[in-house]
Amino acid sequence: MTSGELEAYLHHQIPISRAMEVSVLDPGPARIVLGAPIGPNTNHRSTAFGGSVSTLATLAGWALVHRRLQEHGRAAHVVIQNGAIEYRSPITTDFRATCDTLDQVGWRRLLRGLDRHGRGRVRVSVRIEAEGTAAAHFTGAYVALGS
Amino acid sequence: MTSGELEAYLHHQIPISRAMEVSVLDPGPARIVLGAPIGPNTNHRSTAFGGSVSTLATLAGWALVHRRLQEHGRAAHVVIQNGAIEYRSPITTDFRATCDTLDQVGWRRLLRGLDRHGRGRVRVSVRIEAEGTAAAHFTGAYVALGS
Repeated sequence: MTSGELEAYLHHQIPISRAMEVSVLDPGPARIVLGAPIGPNTNHRSTAFGGSVSTLATLAGWALVHRRLQEHGRAAHVVIQNGAIEYRSPITTDFRATCDTLDQVGWRRLLRGLDRHGRGRVRVSVRIEAEGTAAAHFTGAYVALGS
Repeated sequence: MTSGELEAYLHHQIPISRAMEVSVLDPGPARIVLGAPIGPNTNHRSTAFGGSVSTLATLAGWALVHRRLQEHGRAAHVVIQNGAIEYRSPITTDFRATCDTLDQVGWRRLLRGLDRHGRGRVRVSVRIEAEGTAAAHFTGAYVALGS
């Protein structure tokens, strides 16, 4: 799956990602990097709107789990179970979300759960950067459901 | 401030709220109720996209703090510091976010901080419902900055 294919998939399946003008900078599976321009994602302070920042992170985490399951030949749907975000500094430029840290023990447990019970769960972290500086940090738990 | 005024403010200042077709059902200040149609907020499963659900909650929490500060005659900017959301059940219809619980001790501390140091912080909870059923729960901390 190329960056263009993942981007088209997101824009088609999740209309808000198109409104946010989300771009795929790295389609994985080793790591996912998503970008968003500040333009459509501003708030009343002309900084990045927290909802957009959180949404970009949510998508990056989802994409990492989705892409790694594809690589492991598992046909599963991935849904988010919970998410937490800490906003560290205001973002005044385009920003990106990078997800590459997937706990290996958790990942093996997810695959085992999926194979045995048709359902597994894993936790991921996503860092959000603007101009190369960490601006927010997100963690989320995703559930894979066998289909 | 009427529902229409708050809605126009959100749509103008935060373009993603317009893309999400966010509506204001109760403009506060006692409580905030925001609605979103499922149409522009779906995901690949034809359920509500987690990013949209989290964003609606983020906006509801922000609006409650913003409106109550206005009622108390404080000219302050409100920004989100952190947020956490638990998704409890898939949403297949239009949904709404209600924010009315503001810890009174925390609220007095925020006003005191704002008056003394130009800065205060408060924690709020938001419930997300679809067809009258609780579907997600959000908590967030917001910071008010004197202007």
